[in-house]
Amino acid sequence: MQIAEPLLIAIGELSKLPGIGKKTAQRLAIHLLKCEYEQVEKLITAINDLKLKLRFCSRCFNLSEEDLCNICQSEKRDKFTICVVEEASDVIAIEKTHEFNGLYHVLGGVLSPLAGITPDSLHIKELLKRFENENIKEIILALNPDIEGETTSLYLSKLMKPFGVNVTRIARGLPIGGDLEFADEATIGRAILNRSTF
Amino acid sequence: MQIAEPLLIAIGELSKLPGIGKKTAQRLAIHLLKCEYEQVEKLITAINDLKLKLRFCSRCFNLSEEDLCNICQSEKRDKFTICVVEEASDVIAIEKTHEFNGLYHVLGGVLSPLAGITPDSLHIKELLKRFENENIKEIILALNPDIEGETTSLYLSKLMKPFGVNVTRIARGLPIGGDLEFADEATIGRAILNRSTF
Repeated sequence: MQIAEPLLIAIGELSKLPGIGKKTAQRLAIHLLKCEYEQVEKLITAINDLKLKLRFCSRCFNLSEEDLCNICQSEKRDKFTICVVEEASDVIAIEKTHEFNGLYHVLGGVLSPLAGITPDSLHIKELLKRFENENIKEIILALNPDIEGETTSLYLSKLMKPFGVNVTRIARGLPIGGDLEFADEATIGRAILNRSTF
Repeated sequence: MQIAEPLLIAIGELSKLPGIGKKTAQRLAIHLLKCEYEQVEKLITAINDLKLKLRFCSRCFNLSEEDLCNICQSEKRDKFTICVVEEASDVIAIEKTHEFNGLYHVLGGVLSPLAGITPDSLHIKELLKRFENENIKEIILALNPDIEGETTSLYLSKLMKPFGVNVTRIARGLPIGGDLEFADEATIGRAILNRSTF
């Protein structure tokens, strides 16, 4: 097979991205080849700026262009409530709802002993340090509702008990627009347990 | 919503790629953010090299690092047979089969009057010019078996008739590993018409 070297290299690098296989990488590479150079340059600059201009907020580990992120710096946010999430992308997801006006704390993952992720590899001690410096009244655990997320939530709630802070977690139940018939038993069971008055 | 500007720009640029929506673009951007800078630099260089190092072969419009592509330059290829394909990616697909040892001609698309793609926007006149300079005996039409591909094949076969060249096209039939039950009627019909002796 006589494929040009630069194309092979580009396909190789693109297929290292998550969710991008060999075939998709090839389609992307050929697309980029056919694009105007100006368009490709924009993409390259955007990716480069991601690494050069963005870092993690020194307080909450959200993405930031400065030492403290926009949310930590904002005067309009409720400083007494912290929402604990796994990844910076979860901050984006929650911000999109406009339902939360407090601060965040990004753990950088969840506990997973098999994958070698112990409490030390997450930003847990930095969270506990915030109890000393900030007047926190409520911690909302917003981790993913899977085994690792549940384990981490349990671990965190026990760890935070001595601080006398109110620890809550986001509701589990049927997703809006979902269908009872197709929901799994665990979700329906939880939805019945957590029913609210109409 | 207070998402950092560089992240928004990167998501915007990534979601311009074919088959990449907003959510996937966000996941890719966050992935790139978490990667080592070295890894991201490799990707950037690979994309940049695509545009800087690759161009289209001046004879067959396949991808090439030089004026003539590897295949056109090769002494080992059968110079009397040309396989006509839509895109450079089709060359890669056919090369992978190791069943074809002739030369190629990349049209750069198929006729589609509604999308404004007329014979002039394809590399058709360059193909006809090759009849003057090269001693071509067979043209294999390997366009996609869809309406545009069939129309373009028909157009090309009529155009090439005066040159007295043998025009063939790749077989249509059941794909290997396919299932009769799930094949569409047109494919099965064609497979029966084009049956071969056992």
